[in-house]
Amino acid sequence: MSCVFCAIIAGEAPAIRIYEDDSYLAILDIRPFTRGHTLVLPKRHSVDITDTQPETLAGMITVGQLIARAARATELADATNIGINDGPAAFQTVFHIHLHVLPRRTGDKLAVARGMMLRRDANREATGAILREAVARIDASQSD
Amino acid sequence: MSCVFCAIIAGEAPAIRIYEDDSYLAILDIRPFTRGHTLVLPKRHSVDITDTQPETLAGMITVGQLIARAARATELADATNIGINDGPAAFQTVFHIHLHVLPRRTGDKLAVARGMMLRRDANREATGAILREAVARIDASQSD
Ligand SMILES: [Zn+2]
Ligand SMILES: [Zn+2]
Repeated sequence: MSCVFCAIIAGEAPAIRIYEDDSYLAILDIRPFTRGHTLVLPKRHSVDITDTQPETLAGMITVGQLIARAARATELADATNIGINDGPAAFQTVFHIHLHVLPRRTGDKLAVARGMMLRRDANREATGAILREAVARIDASQSD
Repeated sequence: MSCVFCAIIAGEAPAIRIYEDDSYLAILDIRPFTRGHTLVLPKRHSVDITDTQPETLAGMITVGQLIARAARATELADATNIGINDGPAAFQTVFHIHLHVLPRRTGDKLAVARGMMLRRDANREATGAILREAVARIDASQSD
């Protein structure tokens, strides 16, 4: 399979999963800019904003909001950057559209602004568990 | 009025307008990171992802996709960065939620990556006209 995100969605490549529903999968980025850096992937393959349906983008940001609210409910974040890198000139490196959710904390500002990124998380499993639990809690309270 | 975006939406402060519908207004950023840097504002005031309705975010990214596709249909862009800075630690500076759409071109990569931003556009009106026309064209073709 040539698309790494399709392989992850199909369960044929590993990932630390944060959230999943019928149409989306959220996983930890393997090279995080900040701790808890999560990617929201539509399960149906498309490349960028030019070939992705508006409904798919809308659903993707709804999941992104859930992840961001969850991160802000934990020690990982008091703010978030949510974004799409659409096209090679915008730093898109995997050509299966995805939404970045970056947990941010007061004081990390300069580190990220200067491009000195984490890119490594000493305990990815623990980070995944923190986020998964917060997502499940918020997702459940929204369904009430 | 204490919120500059609410003032712009009310027509009480100036802005170069790119797109408007019943619920959203898109304007050029006054300190653009790249030429054509556009902000999509929900007309109804909310602060960040914690107090904004999922439907509002979904509609905001739908407008953002329209702007991004329009920019990619012009000389302004062959790629885009689309993002929300949610909270002060994530560089949010105006506390009325908004979506950034940054037109990107091959070759501008390092300039933005290193934080050496444009922040000034010699001809904002011309940039606004390019984007407005492309938005109107794509918006019309989507309505067919
Ligand atoms: Zn794929
Ligand atoms: Zn406002």
